[in-house]
Amino acid sequence: MVNPLDRLVHALCKLPGVGEKSATRYAFHLLRSSRDDVRELAEALLAVTREMRYCAECLVPSPTDPCRICRDHQRDRDCICVVEEPADVTAIEKSGAFRGVYHILHGALSPLEGVGPDALKVHELIHRLRSNVVGEVILATNATVEGEATAAYVAQMIRPMGIRITRLASGMPAGAEVEYVDARTLAYALHERRTF
Amino acid sequence: MVNPLDRLVHALCKLPGVGEKSATRYAFHLLRSSRDDVRELAEALLAVTREMRYCAECLVPSPTDPCRICRDHQRDRDCICVVEEPADVTAIEKSGAFRGVYHILHGALSPLEGVGPDALKVHELIHRLRSNVVGEVILATNATVEGEATAAYVAQMIRPMGIRITRLASGMPAGAEVEYVDARTLAYALHERRTF
Repeated sequence: MVNPLDRLVHALCKLPGVGEKSATRYAFHLLRSSRDDVRELAEALLAVTREMRYCAECLVPSPTDPCRICRDHQRDRDCICVVEEPADVTAIEKSGAFRGVYHILHGALSPLEGVGPDALKVHELIHRLRSNVVGEVILATNATVEGEATAAYVAQMIRPMGIRITRLASGMPAGAEVEYVDARTLAYALHERRTF
Repeated sequence: MVNPLDRLVHALCKLPGVGEKSATRYAFHLLRSSRDDVRELAEALLAVTREMRYCAECLVPSPTDPCRICRDHQRDRDCICVVEEPADVTAIEKSGAFRGVYHILHGALSPLEGVGPDALKVHELIHRLRSNVVGEVILATNATVEGEATAAYVAQMIRPMGIRITRLASGMPAGAEVEYVDARTLAYALHERRTF
C-alpha cells in the first residue's frame, strides 16, 4: 500500500520547478489545510480536465470554443498577435494595450530541445491569414534566442502574403535603472532610440 | 461562470510560498499535462483527505493509527524526540541516526503570530511521559528564536518529572566552510567545541 502522503508528493513533483523538497512542503501544508480547501483544489483540477478545450480559432485553452476573446465583437480581427504560450495572452491582456485577437504557437523553435517548425501551430496561422482579411501580424514571441528564431521563421513563412508584420519593441523595462540593466538590453535601447 | 483556469490558479495560490505568478505557471503546465497526470494529482489530494488521520500516540499524520513508527517493536520507546512539525520526522528519519519514537508539537511558540503554549501539543506529551516509562526526551525543535523558546518552555514543563532532557547540538553544518558560516553559528561552534 502506497502511503497517501508519498503519493501526493510524487504527484506534486511533476509541477514545473517543484522538486521533492517543495513537494513535501506543499503536501504537509495540504495535510494541515481544511478538507474543504484540499477538495476545492482537487475539484479545480478535475474541472480543468473536464471543461477546458482549445479555441479552434486562436488555439488558446478555453472553456468555450470560440474563446471569450475570439467571440468578442469589440475586438479588432484585423490585427493578430502571435505568441508562444497561453500564459503570454494573460500577460498581454493584463497590459490592457491590445484590442486585437491572438494566435498561440504552442511553443518556440528550439533545436536543442528538438522542437522544430512542425511542432508549432504555424500552418494554422497561415490558414487563418488565408481565410480572413488581416492587416497586421504582431510577432510577440519572447525576446530570447528561441523567441527571436521563431519570430524570424514565422515572418519568413507569411512574408509572401503581403501582410504588415511587426515585432514587439525591445528596450528598457518600465522602472528600470540604467545602472542595473544588462548590456544586451542597453545595446538594443540605444540602437532603437527614439526622437524625444 | 468562473473560468476553470482562474479557479485552479486561485486554489493553487493557497500553497505555501505560491503567489499568483507561480500558480499561473503551474496551472498552464497542468493544462498541457496528460489528463491522467492531472487526475492522479486530484486523486492523490482526495486520498490524503480521505485516508490520513493522526497517530494518537505521537500525533504524526499517518494512514494508520498507531503510525508505522509507533507500531514498530524495533523502535526504542525509551527515547522520545520532540519536533515542531511532521516534516521534521521525515528529515530525521532520512538521517537514519534515530531509533526512538517521536512527539509532534504541531507548531512552535510565536507571540508575534499569536501562537501560545496552549496551541502546542505539550499536554499530550506530559500525558505520554506520565503513562509510559521514558528515559530521555530529545528537544529537536528548530534552531530559531521560536524553536529555542519552545524547547525552553517544554523543558520547563517536564523538568519536574526527572527525565533526562537533551537538545540537538548546534554548530557547523556538514560540508560547511568556516568562511561562509554565519557569525551566530560560528559562535555556537566555538563555544561548544569538543576535544579532538
